Amino acid sequence: MLDYNVPGGKLNRGLSVIDSYSLLKEGKELTSEEIFQTSSLGWCIEWLQAYFLVLDDIMDGSHTRRGQKCWFRLPKVGMIAANDGILLRNHIPRILKKHFRGKPYYVDLLELFNEVEFQTASGQMIDLITTHFGEKDLSKYSLPIHRRIVQYKTAYYSFYLPVACALLMAGENLDNHVNVKNILLEMGIYFQVQDDYLDCFADPEVLGKIGTDIQDFKCSWLVVKALEHCNDEQKKLLHENYGKDDPACVTKVKALYNDLKLEDVYLEYEKSTYEKLINSIDAQPTKAVQAVLKSFLAKIYKRQK
Amino acid sequence: MLDYNVPGGKLNRGLSVIDSYSLLKEGKELTSEEIFQTSSLGWCIEWLQAYFLVLDDIMDGSHTRRGQKCWFRLPKVGMIAANDGILLRNHIPRILKKHFRGKPYYVDLLELFNEVEFQTASGQMIDLITTHFGEKDLSKYSLPIHRRIVQYKTAYYSFYLPVACALLMAGENLDNHVNVKNILLEMGIYFQVQDDYLDCFADPEVLGKIGTDIQDFKCSWLVVKALEHCNDEQKKLLHENYGKDDPACVTKVKALYNDLKLEDVYLEYEKSTYEKLINSIDAQPTKAVQAVLKSFLAKIYKRQK
Repeated sequence: MLDYNVPGGKLNRGLSVIDSYSLLKEGKELTSEEIFQTSSLGWCIEWLQAYFLVLDDIMDGSHTRRGQKCWFRLPKVGMIAANDGILLRNHIPRILKKHFRGKPYYVDLLELFNEVEFQTASGQMIDLITTHFGEKDLSKYSLPIHRRIVQYKTAYYSFYLPVACALLMAGENLDNHVNVKNILLEMGIYFQVQDDYLDCFADPEVLGKIGTDIQDFKCSWLVVKALEHCNDEQKKLLHENYGKDDPACVTKVKALYNDLKLEDVYLEYEKSTYEKLINSIDAQPTKAVQAVLKSFLAKIYKRQK
Repeated sequence: MLDYNVPGGKLNRGLSVIDSYSLLKEGKELTSEEIFQTSSLGWCIEWLQAYFLVLDDIMDGSHTRRGQKCWFRLPKVGMIAANDGILLRNHIPRILKKHFRGKPYYVDLLELFNEVEFQTASGQMIDLITTHFGEKDLSKYSLPIHRRIVQYKTAYYSFYLPVACALLMAGENLDNHVNVKNILLEMGIYFQVQDDYLDCFADPEVLGKIGTDIQDFKCSWLVVKALEHCNDEQKKLLHENYGKDDPACVTKVKALYNDLKLEDVYLEYEKSTYEKLINSIDAQPTKAVQAVLKSFLAKIYKRQK
C-alpha cells in the first residue's frame, strides 16, 4: 500500500523542506542530523499528500493517478482504501514523535500538521459542495470561490507547509511570519491558476497528460474568467457545453476561450501576479526568508508543465 | 452533518471521562472548570467515535446506524461522507488546542489521541483483511485473531481512552499505568465477547436490534468457539452455512451453537474473566484507580443489552 501510494509524484513538496531550510541556514552546510530531520519532515508532507490523494480519488470517482489505476480501483482493495488513507495519515504523528519528541518546536510541528490537514479538508469540502453537489450549475462559479477552494485545498499544504516546517526547524516562531504565509498562499493560488491554464492550453506532450477540466465541470480559473468576460450569448453557449463529455462541446468551449482571448488574460494575470509577489518578497525583513520565497517563485514562474 | 452523526449513541465513552475523573478525585466535588474540561474530552471521544462510524459504514457497505440511514447512504451525501469523517476527526485537535493548550499534559493528550486513532485504524485494517478480503474462509478465524481485532479496533478507544484522559487531567503519567491499560483492554475484549454473545442469544426486544453476525460472516467469539469445540462433521456444517443470508442456514448454525453448549461456554468465560479482572484490579496500588476500574466492570458485568 505504501509502495503503491507514496512514491510516484514529483516530490516537490518534500524536497522544498530541505531546500528552504538550506536557504534559511544561508549556505552553511547541513549536518547529517539536519539532513535526516528535514528529509523526515519532507516525507511527512509526501505521506500527507498520499493520504489526500487516496481519499480524493474515492470521493471524485477518479480512475487514474500518477499513471496508474487509483488505489481504490484495484479489485482487491475497494473501499478498504479509505482506511489505508487513514493509516497513511496516522504515520505522520508517529514519525514526528519518533524524531522530534525532544525538540522545543515539537508541539508547534504537531499543531502545524493538524491545522494544515484541517484547512485542506475544509478546501475539499468547499470543492465537493461547489463542484459535485446537486446539478451542474455554472452560476455557482466565481473568482472568490475559485480562490477559496484553491487556497484551502492546495496552497496550505503544498506551499505554506514545507516552508513552515523549515522555519520551525530553524527556531522561528510562526506567529512572526504571517506575511510569509500570505505570500506563499498567493503563490499557491498562482500555481493552481497555471495548472488550470495548462490543462487547456499546454501541449499534452509537454504536460504529460491530456486535460479534462472542461469535461469534468471543474471550477477552473479559465471558466471563471470566461464567465466574467462573456456576453449573454456566450454565457448561454458555456452553460450548454461546459461539463459535457462530448468532443464537440469541448471544442466549442475552447473556441469561446479563444474568442475571449483568455490566453492574453492569463499572460496579463501572470505578469501582474509576478510583480506583486516580487514586491511583497522584497518587503520581507531578512534576506534568508526572501531567498526561500524567491526560490519557490523561480520554480513556478512561466512553467510549461 | 454534526447533528446527524455525533449524537444518537449512548454516550458511554464520553460520560466515562467525567465519571472516572470524579472517582480519581475521591469524592471531592468537581469545579465548574473541571466539569467543562472533562466534558470537552468526553465529546472529543464521541467525535472520534462518530468519525470511525461514518468511515466504517462506508467500508462495510452498511445500511443503518443508530436507527437511521448511514450518512453516506443519503442521496445528497454519498462519498462526500469520507471527507465529513475527516472533518469530524480534525476538530479533536482543535478542541484540545482551544481548551488545553496551556496545560502541562497538553502534549500527552495530543499523543494519546494520535496513538489511539492509530490503534483503531490498525484494528479496522486487521478486521477488513480478515473478514472482507477475498473469499469467505472460516479457517482464517481463531481466538487470537478475534482478540487482536477487538483489542485494536474497539478496546483502545472505548475503554482505555476515557480513563487515560481522566488520568492525564488528574496529573498522572500514563507510563506509570501500564497495568491500568492492560486491565481496561481486557475489559474491552470481555465487552465485545458479550456483544457477540448477545447478538445471537439475547432477546431482540431487550437488545433493541436483531443480530446478523451469522449472516454477515462476522469473526464473532461464538463462531471462533464453535470452531474450537466442533468435530469434523460439525465443522463441515459451519463452513457450509456460516455467512449465508438464508434463514435456514442461520437456524442450522444456531442449532449447532446449542449442540456445542456455547451458552455454557460463555457463562464459564464470563465467570472466569470476572474473577481474573477483580483480582487484577485489587492488585492496583491506589483505591481511587481501583474504584475507576470497578465502576467500569460493574457497568458491563452480566449486562443484557
